[in-house]
Amino acid sequence: MGYTLAEKIIAAHLVEGEMKPGAEIGLRIDQTLTQDATGTMAYLELEAMGVDRVKTERSVAYIDHNTLQSGFENADDHRYIRTVAKKYGVWFSRPGNGICHQVHLERFGVPGKTLIGSDSHTPTGGGIGMLAMGAGGLDVAVAMGGGAYHITMPKTVKVNLTGALPPYVSAKDVILKVLSILSVKGGVGRVIEYGGAGVATLSVPQRATITNMGAELGATTSIFPSDETTRAFLRAQGREGDYVPLAPDADAVYERVIDIDLGALEPLVAKPHSPDNVDTAANLAGLKVDQVCIGSCTNSSLADMLTVAAMLKGRTVHPEVSLVIAPGSKQVLTMLAENGALADIVAAGARVLECACGPCIGMGQAPQSGGVSLRTFNRNFEGRSGTADASVYLVSPETAVASAVAGVLTDPRTFGAPVEIKMPEHFLVNDNLIDPPAESGNDVEVLRGPNIKPFPEAKPLPEEIDAPVTIKVGDNITTDHIMPATTKQLPYRSNIPYLSNYCFTRCDEEFPERMRHTGGGILVGGVNYGQGSSREHAALVPLYLGAKAVLVKSFARIHKANLVNAGILPLVFEDEADYDRITLGDRLVLRGLRESAGTGGERVEIENVTAGVRFGARLELSQRERAVLLAGGLLNYTRESGKNA
Amino acid sequence: MGYTLAEKIIAAHLVEGEMKPGAEIGLRIDQTLTQDATGTMAYLELEAMGVDRVKTERSVAYIDHNTLQSGFENADDHRYIRTVAKKYGVWFSRPGNGICHQVHLERFGVPGKTLIGSDSHTPTGGGIGMLAMGAGGLDVAVAMGGGAYHITMPKTVKVNLTGALPPYVSAKDVILKVLSILSVKGGVGRVIEYGGAGVATLSVPQRATITNMGAELGATTSIFPSDETTRAFLRAQGREGDYVPLAPDADAVYERVIDIDLGALEPLVAKPHSPDNVDTAANLAGLKVDQVCIGSCTNSSLADMLTVAAMLKGRTVHPEVSLVIAPGSKQVLTMLAENGALADIVAAGARVLECACGPCIGMGQAPQSGGVSLRTFNRNFEGRSGTADASVYLVSPETAVASAVAGVLTDPRTFGAPVEIKMPEHFLVNDNLIDPPAESGNDVEVLRGPNIKPFPEAKPLPEEIDAPVTIKVGDNITTDHIMPATTKQLPYRSNIPYLSNYCFTRCDEEFPERMRHTGGGILVGGVNYGQGSSREHAALVPLYLGAKAVLVKSFARIHKANLVNAGILPLVFEDEADYDRITLGDRLVLRGLRESAGTGGERVEIENVTAGVRFGARLELSQRERAVLLAGGLLNYTRESGKNA
Repeated sequence: MGYTLAEKIIAAHLVEGEMKPGAEIGLRIDQTLTQDATGTMAYLELEAMGVDRVKTERSVAYIDHNTLQSGFENADDHRYIRTVAKKYGVWFSRPGNGICHQVHLERFGVPGKTLIGSDSHTPTGGGIGMLAMGAGGLDVAVAMGGGAYHITMPKTVKVNLTGALPPYVSAKDVILKVLSILSVKGGVGRVIEYGGAGVATLSVPQRATITNMGAELGATTSIFPSDETTRAFLRAQGREGDYVPLAPDADAVYERVIDIDLGALEPLVAKPHSPDNVDTAANLAGLKVDQVCIGSCTNSSLADMLTVAAMLKGRTVHPEVSLVIAPGSKQVLTMLAENGALADIVAAGARVLECACGPCIGMGQAPQSGGVSLRTFNRNFEGRSGTADASVYLVSPETAVASAVAGVLTDPRTFGAPVEIKMPEHFLVNDNLIDPPAESGNDVEVLRGPNIKPFPEAKPLPEEIDAPVTIKVGDNITTDHIMPATTKQLPYRSNIPYLSNYCFTRCDEEFPERMRHTGGGILVGGVNYGQGSSREHAALVPLYLGAKAVLVKSFARIHKANLVNAGILPLVFEDEADYDRITLGDRLVLRGLRESAGTGGERVEIENVTAGVRFGARLELSQRERAVLLAGGLLNYTRESGKNA
Repeated sequence: MGYTLAEKIIAAHLVEGEMKPGAEIGLRIDQTLTQDATGTMAYLELEAMGVDRVKTERSVAYIDHNTLQSGFENADDHRYIRTVAKKYGVWFSRPGNGICHQVHLERFGVPGKTLIGSDSHTPTGGGIGMLAMGAGGLDVAVAMGGGAYHITMPKTVKVNLTGALPPYVSAKDVILKVLSILSVKGGVGRVIEYGGAGVATLSVPQRATITNMGAELGATTSIFPSDETTRAFLRAQGREGDYVPLAPDADAVYERVIDIDLGALEPLVAKPHSPDNVDTAANLAGLKVDQVCIGSCTNSSLADMLTVAAMLKGRTVHPEVSLVIAPGSKQVLTMLAENGALADIVAAGARVLECACGPCIGMGQAPQSGGVSLRTFNRNFEGRSGTADASVYLVSPETAVASAVAGVLTDPRTFGAPVEIKMPEHFLVNDNLIDPPAESGNDVEVLRGPNIKPFPEAKPLPEEIDAPVTIKVGDNITTDHIMPATTKQLPYRSNIPYLSNYCFTRCDEEFPERMRHTGGGILVGGVNYGQGSSREHAALVPLYLGAKAVLVKSFARIHKANLVNAGILPLVFEDEADYDRITLGDRLVLRGLRESAGTGGERVEIENVTAGVRFGARLELSQRERAVLLAGGLLNYTRESGKNA
């Protein structure tokens, strides 16, 4: 029985465990990346681990999130990351160089390698056949230190592509189609592997759009084969030497095969407030639009921008629409500036922002109150735009431009004759904004600003937890709900005490105060708890506030790992109906925890003292995860075990 | 006896008063401009005045300040300004179209016309021979309604330019030289008029840099003749028809003549924290630099940007410097994108921001804590950068680039061979981001967001004021001190109650709370009180908090007018020594105010009840200003008098 492509890469990197779906495995990690919102914490953790120098083949620190710089905090954090990277052997991509995933694809990604990044859209690298996964900052720190990265051995779902995309139908529409089929939790515990004759019709940037937004499926990652298209991309980047062909075995076995005829697709839209709330552009045509944003790690490649420029050329953005465009990298922006495409974009009236995440991460360009914003981004969670009552629709660049010009949501197939773009033979390679690390870190001083506060330290798992339920939330709670990330909070990603004032406030304004009053508590949630961004702050901030356990119907992958890393007990209802029997403020008692965890026990009995009932919860944890919890989180575990986890 | 150039334009627009220096005159205003930070309030005031349609030749509303959009407030305000402009006959320059002064110079300025703008750098228009003045929002609203604009008839100072600028010495160095001679209060009550053979050697953008930053002298305005250079500029903008030649009479009489040999100048720097704290770049060379910012209404022209691009071409920004560049207008950015200069800028590693005020107004790009930032802007007041302990140095674009590349402050004359830039015969004219007003405003609905709060209404001057001194500040207090304008406050320019929480907090954190506790009070200050930005919020917010009188050694022009417009009594110490005899908290009683104001009395007797002393203050007000105070501010006066003031 052959391997899927994902299984091949896993097999080549397996250092612990068995490749049995559902079992925990440890992988050797070749490359890591961080961005600045999660990276500050990751490097503080790396420093705390006492490692001298990173042991990966390539680790890169990007600055792309906190680029508005409303106060000193951002520039201080950038300086911290610049100096800590230089000292510990990490390459540093300076502010202005672009979005981590776009730049990593251009300059560093290698087919067949493993990559983890402290950003949930790290699977972008799957577009060139990497096994690229989002992870918590501490997991990235451990990997930089040479430790394995632990995941549950995933199942593989094949998306079998046939045909070719019609004009004005794009890669974004492919992934929106997949989201409409699988939903935001359909990818949990799975790798989504693309195959079929249709693959050859898709360029690397198109593939990367699809794998990028595979994060919205909750998938472990998504991956494309590495083929002649991959080789041509790497050659155009001056990196043909990094090419290796990669494909699944002919007799690979998939959990499920989903067939998609690219030729039958039409322009799609994810409606508020979930990426899987998909409809057709044709159905929604005519909706008045206030803002259109193009960019983000999903759709900011040169090909995307050239398409946008060709559609905008000679036209004017509708008077009642604000069109903002952020190219994905300095490479993209320089080439747009050189070939005249940027002039077409600006002449049409687009507002061109710095190459960075920008509005996708809520850094600026909040829509008007009650506004409708069309975005080529990957998430449309409520409030993420910075405007609580805005309606965000996710669309392709083609739909975005057609709508920006018309002033209403528009099926781009009605826009006119298809535009043709010409991709260059060679990308313009100039890595002068990527600083290499110092030869030796001994003489490098790490510079810290006053915004960098110590992070909370977890305590070993206690024998008993006796605490009130301090919040009860519903299904599909995102890490944006747990720890919001707008311009008000993002500059404080290295300041957990400050962030704690905003924890869960989108769901319950009283939560931080309640936690302080009760001295901590137990959090209760529904299915797919912790989906979305990989930010470990969604675990560290509750830890700081005294969260002792999180009891839910099911977890999103990265967040559950972050809870374990932070030493917070993650529990799953044995019977989902028990969720309904818990009320905010109920006192829960959990006993014999160290024994259950230590012996590999699956079950924890919970007594709801207030309601006078008992029920069971499952401890869905590997032996390693149990050891991490017993030790009091991954940092303590790593220090104690003397190995890098 | 002949007229100066300023006097000629004044004479042609005089509708009230006599042209006697020191006397109040009323001028017919041909053009107005607003930006979005002050404009929201100005248009609310225009609406409150009950005017149907603006009566100026040209009024333009620009969006350039609040472009980060961290929350819904900015987009809401932009929508409000767009719709109110359309209704009332005002042209609307959309976000992305550029900085008001740069765009106005390019597209609307006309030699010999009067222009007032709700932005202190409106004198930029003096670069093409306009009489262009900064004013409070209410003054602009009155002018839009057809009312006169009142100023004290200024004296005229001539700056006699000879020679020509050496390589790497720029217009910025000329105005820094003037600032070193006259200081930030040397221009009060004066127009600075440039003449001499050296004028012909300066381009319009160079002249505009000089008149723009004349605002820092405290001058009423600055002005250059309109000559063949002006004609060529207007022709290149497709507006040769707007050209008229303008020069002072040969026998014009100036208060003072300052001779400057352009050929003898060298690169200059304004050190923290005042634009007149001038030293040479050579003296300061070697200072480690963390950030360099290029742009703002002072130095963002095409010529500036082409110079920057030529210097950056093939070089890389120093690894420890963040270089940010914001071109001044869509015209500039489009042309840079078309001719390859932008590609050179991006390739060197500059971070290119949207065409807007950006970091100059504290909207983003705050330096690191304790950082050194070199900026081509016009103000380096403490804290204005968004970082309280940053050190901001004002420099020319040439000094900025040389320093950004070297990583230390650098005299650009050491940079290498002078760069040569080629200016185009014609600018690229595309006004598609400037929306014309509706033919009729009847059908236009003005859209307001929840951030737009009613502004405080002033009350008629009382017979007696009996109130405590609630703050005592020193000399050269800026409107940035009174009402800070960083990303935290700027989005709330139409929300006076919110802003009041920040009033004077840079000087005294307790001030807002104290005012609320005492129910208002009297503010005491030193010389040149209220310099800097024209924001009327520095009067409206104290009004909201209950300020009854402001007692200082001397006032900056625009702020004093804003106090009168807001119905707050502006008083000047008869004897400056009395300043030292006042303590925070002292109870002051001012009696017979309506009689003094009404009869034209110059003197108000003040009893310091706490200290048990009496002293005098002067009421340096015109008859019209007295009437405005008696009526309770300009809005009440305008409504009552049935004329537009």
